[in-house]
Amino acid sequence: MDLPFDFESQLAARATLVERRLADRLDGTPRPGEIVLPPRILSAMRYALLGGGKRIRPFLLMEAAALFMPDADTEAAALDVAAALECIHTYSLVHDDLPAMDDDALRRGRPTLHIAYDEATAILAGDALLTLAFDMVTDPSTSLAPERRVALVSALSRAAGFGGMVGGQMIDLASENRHLSEEEIVTLQAMKTGALLRFACEAGAIVCGATPDDRERLSRFGEAIGLAFQLADDLLDLTADEAVMGKATGKDADRGKATLVSLHGAEWAHTQLRGLVDAAVELLEPFGDRAEPLRQAAGFIANRRN
Amino acid sequence: MDLPFDFESQLAARATLVERRLADRLDGTPRPGEIVLPPRILSAMRYALLGGGKRIRPFLLMEAAALFMPDADTEAAALDVAAALECIHTYSLVHDDLPAMDDDALRRGRPTLHIAYDEATAILAGDALLTLAFDMVTDPSTSLAPERRVALVSALSRAAGFGGMVGGQMIDLASENRHLSEEEIVTLQAMKTGALLRFACEAGAIVCGATPDDRERLSRFGEAIGLAFQLADDLLDLTADEAVMGKATGKDADRGKATLVSLHGAEWAHTQLRGLVDAAVELLEPFGDRAEPLRQAAGFIANRRN
Repeated sequence: MDLPFDFESQLAARATLVERRLADRLDGTPRPGEIVLPPRILSAMRYALLGGGKRIRPFLLMEAAALFMPDADTEAAALDVAAALECIHTYSLVHDDLPAMDDDALRRGRPTLHIAYDEATAILAGDALLTLAFDMVTDPSTSLAPERRVALVSALSRAAGFGGMVGGQMIDLASENRHLSEEEIVTLQAMKTGALLRFACEAGAIVCGATPDDRERLSRFGEAIGLAFQLADDLLDLTADEAVMGKATGKDADRGKATLVSLHGAEWAHTQLRGLVDAAVELLEPFGDRAEPLRQAAGFIANRRN
Repeated sequence: MDLPFDFESQLAARATLVERRLADRLDGTPRPGEIVLPPRILSAMRYALLGGGKRIRPFLLMEAAALFMPDADTEAAALDVAAALECIHTYSLVHDDLPAMDDDALRRGRPTLHIAYDEATAILAGDALLTLAFDMVTDPSTSLAPERRVALVSALSRAAGFGGMVGGQMIDLASENRHLSEEEIVTLQAMKTGALLRFACEAGAIVCGATPDDRERLSRFGEAIGLAFQLADDLLDLTADEAVMGKATGKDADRGKATLVSLHGAEWAHTQLRGLVDAAVELLEPFGDRAEPLRQAAGFIANRRN
């Protein structure tokens, strides 16, 4: 790529697109099949969903799709799926923050949803966001081939479900103050945070009808950056302060949760991170210059400060 | 229909099929895309999902499909969607029973999930059941045409989401000890219980690729029996005792919740119920004898004792 590529601008531009798409879906107009959109749940969903955030998962999805030079309709579909993925990510934060779960009062620098509203509203808004994700992938107004939409719903539900993200959260809660083996920690993290990041990258390929080979390649790229993301997160939890993170930090140690960083130390983690980024970047080799955004995303994820 | 049709046997037979399908999906074997199925969440999902129940929604779905004389593959797909629908219904019960919501300790004669396990597990198992529903509709092992699966995911997510079931629960919670107009009560009930019953009937038509006209007819049938279901429920709440219901009763009045029955009285409700059943049965007229199970279902729902 001869022209300089500005990662931060591109990330912000994609985030704006996703935010607009989500705001549009939550404009309060019932779609066919919807009866009434109660103001309180709508407002709670907007509070949780439109509260900023880097939108890294949508970015990965849209940049993975861009590798395959999609036409305008396919690009629009990638945005829909990216917005759906953000609904799932957001619902998981809302439910994880609940008193019965991680009991967090602060998220992205603002009161968590159950503090700003109440617990019942937070549970329901989370349920509604999870449900909305599948609505957005199958919205009759989009033209994506039904085969691809079915594949997306299937992959997304398995990444997010009891064999993926939700299962990871279950293991995490059940393991507080209990010793986890290194293998168990890796599994937990692959499920809790890795599955959605892997889906983000794989979904870009599915949306574009990529070959199984390319889909697998993107899936492995997503897996590598998922591991990097978690290591970076564990490092941050050890060192960052709340002002930078916009949420409570140092909680893993407080709760007696082992992480790979607490097992092996920060230096080991930095070395690992470099290896993961190298491996991820190598997977992108066949895509040439078009993969520059994803290359930089790998570095960004490994080195992020919050 | 010349042979006598035994409604109760047919209902029980369908329930057994659904229970087997669900037990099979929760057999603990990870499907492609699933990493590990943590025993605790698997066990909680099984507790909630395989705890009996009449499986009236799956029955309606399968009998609606049967109107269109499906081949064996389509019949199997109807069972998959019926099982998915039961996942959604069950997750809604699990979350509604939570302390922050209706705070119920008893369900189908057994401790509710958050009592039998804990609150966090109940939240996560509910999330997992909701997610699993969409997985089951799009399972790559089923042969249903992608167009139909997409239509099913779309209709199901809108029936279950913030413009349907979840939205209805939000209105319900927000309206405790507040006066609701008759129109508001009707809307609340159409969302909270009506939307999934309507989907059940409509989905039978979608699975079979029925004409838009027949799909609309089944949808209206589902709407009518949804109204009947709710009236019967309100009557039961007024009169039944906990031993028959297997759950706490008389709670609507305790909470100052108005129902159509509390507004208009039991006699009015019985007259309404007869009118709704007649209207529902009339909608089935074009299907002739094949509609006998659905006809009896309408009567069963209106006259149920628990």
